[in-house]
Amino acid sequence: MTAVNESAQVGDTVREAVHAAARRARVASRTLALLTTAQKDAALRAAADAVLAATDTVLAANAADVETARAAGTDESLIDRLRLTADRIDGIASGLRQVAGLADPIGEVVRGSTLPNGLELRQLRVPLGVVGMVYEARPNVTVDAFGLALKSGNAALLRGSSSARNSNAALVEVLRGALTAGGLPADAVQLLPSEDRSSVTHLIQARGLVDVVIPRGGAGLISAVVRDATVPTIETGVGNCHVYVHSAADLAKAEKIVINAKTRRPSVCNTAETILIDAAIADTAVPALSQALQTAGVVIHGDLEGQVPATEADWAEEYLTLDVAMKVVADLNAAVEHIDRYGTGHTEAIVTDDLAAAREFTARVDAAAVMVNASTAFTDGEQFGFGAEIGISTQKLHARGPMGLPELTSTKWVVWGDGHTRPA
Amino acid sequence: MTAVNESAQVGDTVREAVHAAARRARVASRTLALLTTAQKDAALRAAADAVLAATDTVLAANAADVETARAAGTDESLIDRLRLTADRIDGIASGLRQVAGLADPIGEVVRGSTLPNGLELRQLRVPLGVVGMVYEARPNVTVDAFGLALKSGNAALLRGSSSARNSNAALVEVLRGALTAGGLPADAVQLLPSEDRSSVTHLIQARGLVDVVIPRGGAGLISAVVRDATVPTIETGVGNCHVYVHSAADLAKAEKIVINAKTRRPSVCNTAETILIDAAIADTAVPALSQALQTAGVVIHGDLEGQVPATEADWAEEYLTLDVAMKVVADLNAAVEHIDRYGTGHTEAIVTDDLAAAREFTARVDAAAVMVNASTAFTDGEQFGFGAEIGISTQKLHARGPMGLPELTSTKWVVWGDGHTRPA
Repeated sequence: MTAVNESAQVGDTVREAVHAAARRARVASRTLALLTTAQKDAALRAAADAVLAATDTVLAANAADVETARAAGTDESLIDRLRLTADRIDGIASGLRQVAGLADPIGEVVRGSTLPNGLELRQLRVPLGVVGMVYEARPNVTVDAFGLALKSGNAALLRGSSSARNSNAALVEVLRGALTAGGLPADAVQLLPSEDRSSVTHLIQARGLVDVVIPRGGAGLISAVVRDATVPTIETGVGNCHVYVHSAADLAKAEKIVINAKTRRPSVCNTAETILIDAAIADTAVPALSQALQTAGVVIHGDLEGQVPATEADWAEEYLTLDVAMKVVADLNAAVEHIDRYGTGHTEAIVTDDLAAAREFTARVDAAAVMVNASTAFTDGEQFGFGAEIGISTQKLHARGPMGLPELTSTKWVVWGDGHTRPA
Repeated sequence: MTAVNESAQVGDTVREAVHAAARRARVASRTLALLTTAQKDAALRAAADAVLAATDTVLAANAADVETARAAGTDESLIDRLRLTADRIDGIASGLRQVAGLADPIGEVVRGSTLPNGLELRQLRVPLGVVGMVYEARPNVTVDAFGLALKSGNAALLRGSSSARNSNAALVEVLRGALTAGGLPADAVQLLPSEDRSSVTHLIQARGLVDVVIPRGGAGLISAVVRDATVPTIETGVGNCHVYVHSAADLAKAEKIVINAKTRRPSVCNTAETILIDAAIADTAVPALSQALQTAGVVIHGDLEGQVPATEADWAEEYLTLDVAMKVVADLNAAVEHIDRYGTGHTEAIVTDDLAAAREFTARVDAAAVMVNASTAFTDGEQFGFGAEIGISTQKLHARGPMGLPELTSTKWVVWGDGHTRPA
């Protein structure tokens, strides 16, 4: 047998494993869809207790992952995202309890009416069914995704990164044990093999078995998923966010907002990557903001003197580091056009005291979130009051912006009649 | 140059034509998104007037399509769908006026709150942007899609069937003329080339230029679109609908519902394709319903004596003709399992006077619409009171069931602050 054939056979085995897991998830999802809120909340609290009780086991599994990563020369910032501590496990368990405290979206009547012929219509929220998640290093996502999926009545198929394989396996084993102990189907949560990329491909092509796949990760993962998926997907997390400092901006507020949006957590998707400054105030705003940014350790890229010369990539791509692009634009219209060209539809902000400018910017900019006099860092499910988030959608279909529990649901029309037939 | 190269060159030309149209549509969509309701309604009424005024031109173009179709030996039922008359053009114009009378979804505040820190959040309905439609023979869809897209602030890229190419071209020319006369961008509606399939492929792969594609047509079109699309799509219209006659059914109601669901319009997606009869009442229900169906000219397929022997395809596929499959099932659970296996998630009905059975069926069956004691024929945007529909979604993401104006929108979070920054 040639190496190619062996590889094909391994691929088939992975495919069968993913499909078998999806079929088990589908069976479990039929049970989950009918659970009461009290049953789901009890299961979430039991899972929280089980995770805490298993702290030592989970930490041991995580230590093995960290050791492997370190031996492979992995960057310390990635290792930090991978590492669990007793405190972080506490936080993971609290997260489950918090989800138990959120309102149950299932069964909510979204719309309804009684037709002139007496037919009674209700559009109800129902679970999506089987939700696939593809995500990178952080093991807490494993438990968060399980919790949000369970509360919204969905079965979760989790494909974490191979670097967290031991941590994820330990956590999922704990969660499945807690479900079984509570009389619920363990297949409400399953971990897919992460040894190679093919399990991602099989997951996103398991049409008819999986209802939606949500990739959480960098631009490479997202675009591979979008290209190859036949299952519906929700794009998340790529943010090339701008702060536009308008001619009528309060410069003190602009400085606070720019510094917060850029430096609070440079590696996340809601960080600001380009500062647009209105030409009318460039003489004062450029030096003031540049000095504030440089004092905060930010490297400025652009076309002005003293800046690192900018290329097309500086405008088009995320840095996710303590770098920022800066550009002087002629006016609000030029700012909107720049954002239209380079933005990723995540979060865009204007700083201005002019109401008409604020209204025009919010109306014209096409993004999941548009901020007036506020930091881009606010685009976040917890900040928005959702209690938890499964990701931030940058697509326009189904969900846009931070996704909480309602975004993990579909709807169903239930129609009650009494022998009603439709006239010809 | 070889034939292959020539064909590749033609493909590139079509691709460039589709992309150029999509770029023009995107520019137009920026204007459409900012129109007031009054501006959109005036444009819809002007378009209705223009369509009526152009009746002779449109009928002449349509006559050419009908002649070509007839010469090609096209089936009379398809020719009937293609044919326009002065009455049908009246109806098309009335449809535009009706859309003008519907509530404008754009700008509706879907959710909103003021956070403890004083940030004011509103989630507003906004247009999707550029909406692609791929559809088959009926030229009225051309105008309907334009009307719904315009009212919801979207630019429409229409890819009709080549058999209606003259009719569609004449209608789109009229609509564009009316837009221009009203000072609106003509590129709010564009007809894509329909000479070969490649324009469909280029449309559904114009990611970044087109926001959503809605295919309306048979199972073949839908699955080709789903397989090849990189643009988000909404599946519509494939319905393998069931009527389950429960043990506690009123047989007179069951007969009315079964006959209406099967024979009212057998060629549409909400027609009933399989009748499931509970074993407990099979002795009386099978002969009664069979006789009623046969009297109505319906051929019954199944495993019982006197039925055309059924194969797997009888359970799995739509007939869209005066044929129906019939099966005796052990109980409600068996009915749900049959539907779970063969249903397409469109519309499923139960006939019963037993409240617990009705509740269990509606809770367990996973479909866009679940009817109790009502015909499957009611699943329709106009019947549901939406005023008009762009199609019936059988997917779970974004829209499920009949799609009206709100289903042609996305949302945007608009956040107002006063120098707000997010704590570390």
